[in-house]
Amino acid sequence: MAKKITGNNQYLKELNKATVLNLIRENKKLSRKELSDLTGLSPTACGSITRELIKDGFLHETGQGESTGGRKPVMLELKPNSYYAVGFDIGMSELKMVIADITANILLQRQFKYSPGIPAGKVIELIREKFFETIDSEKLSADKFIGCGLSIPGILDRKTNKIIIAPNLSWNEVDLGTGVSEVLGMPAFMENEAMCSAICEQWIGKCSSIENFICINIESGIGAGIYIGDAIYRGFSGSAGEIGHLIVKENGRLCGCGNRGCLETYASVRHMLSEINEKVQNGYSSDIIDPGMGALSWDQIVDAAYKGDELCIEVLKKGAEYIGFAVAYLINTLNPEAIVLGKCFTDYAPLVMDVLMATVNEKALKYPVSKVKILTSEFGMNSSALGAAMIPIRKIFGK
Amino acid sequence: MAKKITGNNQYLKELNKATVLNLIRENKKLSRKELSDLTGLSPTACGSITRELIKDGFLHETGQGESTGGRKPVMLELKPNSYYAVGFDIGMSELKMVIADITANILLQRQFKYSPGIPAGKVIELIREKFFETIDSEKLSADKFIGCGLSIPGILDRKTNKIIIAPNLSWNEVDLGTGVSEVLGMPAFMENEAMCSAICEQWIGKCSSIENFICINIESGIGAGIYIGDAIYRGFSGSAGEIGHLIVKENGRLCGCGNRGCLETYASVRHMLSEINEKVQNGYSSDIIDPGMGALSWDQIVDAAYKGDELCIEVLKKGAEYIGFAVAYLINTLNPEAIVLGKCFTDYAPLVMDVLMATVNEKALKYPVSKVKILTSEFGMNSSALGAAMIPIRKIFGK
Repeated sequence: MAKKITGNNQYLKELNKATVLNLIRENKKLSRKELSDLTGLSPTACGSITRELIKDGFLHETGQGESTGGRKPVMLELKPNSYYAVGFDIGMSELKMVIADITANILLQRQFKYSPGIPAGKVIELIREKFFETIDSEKLSADKFIGCGLSIPGILDRKTNKIIIAPNLSWNEVDLGTGVSEVLGMPAFMENEAMCSAICEQWIGKCSSIENFICINIESGIGAGIYIGDAIYRGFSGSAGEIGHLIVKENGRLCGCGNRGCLETYASVRHMLSEINEKVQNGYSSDIIDPGMGALSWDQIVDAAYKGDELCIEVLKKGAEYIGFAVAYLINTLNPEAIVLGKCFTDYAPLVMDVLMATVNEKALKYPVSKVKILTSEFGMNSSALGAAMIPIRKIFGK
Repeated sequence: MAKKITGNNQYLKELNKATVLNLIRENKKLSRKELSDLTGLSPTACGSITRELIKDGFLHETGQGESTGGRKPVMLELKPNSYYAVGFDIGMSELKMVIADITANILLQRQFKYSPGIPAGKVIELIREKFFETIDSEKLSADKFIGCGLSIPGILDRKTNKIIIAPNLSWNEVDLGTGVSEVLGMPAFMENEAMCSAICEQWIGKCSSIENFICINIESGIGAGIYIGDAIYRGFSGSAGEIGHLIVKENGRLCGCGNRGCLETYASVRHMLSEINEKVQNGYSSDIIDPGMGALSWDQIVDAAYKGDELCIEVLKKGAEYIGFAVAYLINTLNPEAIVLGKCFTDYAPLVMDVLMATVNEKALKYPVSKVKILTSEFGMNSSALGAAMIPIRKIFGK
C-alpha cells in the first residue's frame, strides 16, 4: 500500500529544530543570520526556533562573533550540562556506565563487576542502584536525563524490543529495555554492542565525517557495526554484522555455531586465551612465561607479548592474519571508506598491525583497498558504553 | 562545512511530481481525490501537478473508478508508449539491447555478436548503428527516448564517469558514457552489470517490495549488486559487490587476482568450463560425453548435466556448494531479506539448489538464515540489459 505523506506542521517544526541543532553541532557556533542562510528558513522562523531551543535549554548565547560589516552578531552554541544521557554496556562479568551531556561531553565513566551468568532481572536492579547512587553523589538531577542507551552483546529484535539471543549472557528472548526504562523513569534504547561502538566512532570518534564504515570489535566474540549512507545498518531483521563466523580454515577448530574453522575460533580473545593457556599447561615456558604462573589472564598475555614472548606473539599474529581475511572480504564486498578495529584489539594493535595490513593488501582487490582507511579505535573497551550514551543524545539531532 | 538546505520551489515541484508518479505506479490507477489523500497535497496542487504530467505525456486518464458515494471518479495511470528508454549490456562477445517504455513494458530485446577484445570506440559505433537501425524499423521516434543505461562488467568511478577496469573487456580508464550520450543524443548512465541486475529485480522482478537484498550473478566472473534501505549501494568509491574473491579453499586454484582458492576459481562459468574440458581432453567420457565432441560449450555442459553426466553434475554441485559459502557469509554480515541468484546460475539451478541450500543452512547463523529468502532470477542472461533500460525510467520517479 502507498504510504501517506503528511504535511504535518509539528513534524516539520521538529525537523527544523533538528536541522538547526545539527548545524550548530557541526559548526560549533553560529549566529542567527548564519543559521538563516544555511537553512533557507526566514529570519523570523529561525528566530522562533532558536528562541524555543534556548528556552528549553538546548542552546545558549555565547559571546559575539566576527562582524561582517554591521554589529557583531550574538553566537549560539549547544548548552553544556543542560541535559544528560546515560549509557550502559552489559558485559559478561561487568557493567560499564557512562554519563554524558548533550554536547557529548563525558561527565563520568564507571565499571561494576558481577558474576558471569547474571540474570536480566539482576542487571536491571544493578542499573537502577548504580544509576541513582551515582547521580546522587554527583548531584545530578534525574529529571535532566533524556534517556538511556543499552549496549547488548547479542542479536536484538527491534519489532518486539527483545534480545533474541545473547550467548555470553546466556539470555534468550529477554526484554531488558522495558525493565530499565521503568526503573530509571526514562526512555531506554537497546543496541547491539558492535553497533554501539560504531555509533561512538561516528558521534565522537574517527568516523564523524565518514558515511560508509565498519567497526570490528575483537572481544570474547567478533562482531561488526556497519554504517551505510551515514546511517546505522542493522539488516532486515536486526542481526547484520555477525562477521565472526567467516570460515578462515578448512576443517579448523570447532566453533560454538557448529561449524569448523570460524574466524572467532582463531582471532577472538576467548580462543586466543585458551590456545595459549593450553600450551602453557602442556609445559610451554619462556623467559617471560613460567608454567608456575598458572592460567594466564588476557592482560598477562598482552604484557608477555610486548615483552617478546614467542608463543603470545605468534597467537596474536595468527589471529590478526585471520582478521585480515575478514577485513579484505569486507573491503571487496562493501567498499567502505574506513574500517575501525576496536575493543581488545587496541591492546595489541601495535604488535600485529603489520601482519594484518600485509594480509589485507594481499587478499583484497587493489582498487577498493587503495580507497580504504584501516584504523584502530581510540576508545578501547569503552566504545560500546560511550556509544550507548550517545543514542539518546543523537535523537535530539533527529538521528 | 554545513550543507545549505534550500526551500527551492522548482525542487519541491519535481519532488511532488515524482511522488505522484510513484504512487500511481505502485497502485496502478488512482483518482485525483486518492492522490490528494495519499500525498497530503491540496486538491488544487494535485490538480495542477496531474495536469502538467498529463500535458507532458507521463499520465493519462483511463475510464472511471469505483464511486464512494458521489460521481464515479476519473482514474489516472502511467501512459504507455509515450516515452522510451534503451538499455545496453556490454558483454565479452555480445551486445544486448532492450527498449522499454516508462511503464516498464519491454518493447523489444536484441543481441548482437562481436569478437572478444573489441575496443570501446567500436562498441559506441555498434550502439549507434543498432539503435538507429532498430528504432527506424520499429518506427519509434528518437525524440521520445529519455535516456540510455549501460551495463558494464567492471568497476566504475562515478566521479569521473569512467570505467576504471573491466577485465573481461580489457578496458581501463574508459569513458563510455560520454561517447554513447553523444552518438545517441540522450543522457547515458553507466552502471555495474550486477547492479543492473539488482535494479531489474527491484523495478520489475522479485524484489519490488524488498528494501535490503543482494543479486549474485554467476557468469565468467561472480559479482553482486547490493540494495540497502531501498537504494542502490555502491560503496565509498563505487566498487561494492566484488564477492568473487572470497577464499573458499586454502591453497586452492590460482585466481586472476593473484590469490589462491577464490570463489570464482570454482564457481564461475569460465572456471567450471575449463575444469570439465580439461578432464574431457584427458580422456573423461560417459554415455553422454564423447571425447570426440571436442571442447564443450556451456550449453553442452548444462545439457549433459541434465542428462545425468556425472562429471558435469559434480562440477556444478561443487560450484554451488562454494556459492553457498559466500551466500552464508553475506547472510551473516548483511542480514538481507532476499538473495537472488542469477545469470548463468538460472540455467542449472534445479540441479544444484539442494546442495546450495544445505550449505547455506549449515554455514549461516540460524537467526538470519531463518529470515532470508533465497531466490533464482526469472530473467536469466537478460537481467543486466533489462536493468540498464530501467535506469533512465527510474529517474522520472526520482530514484
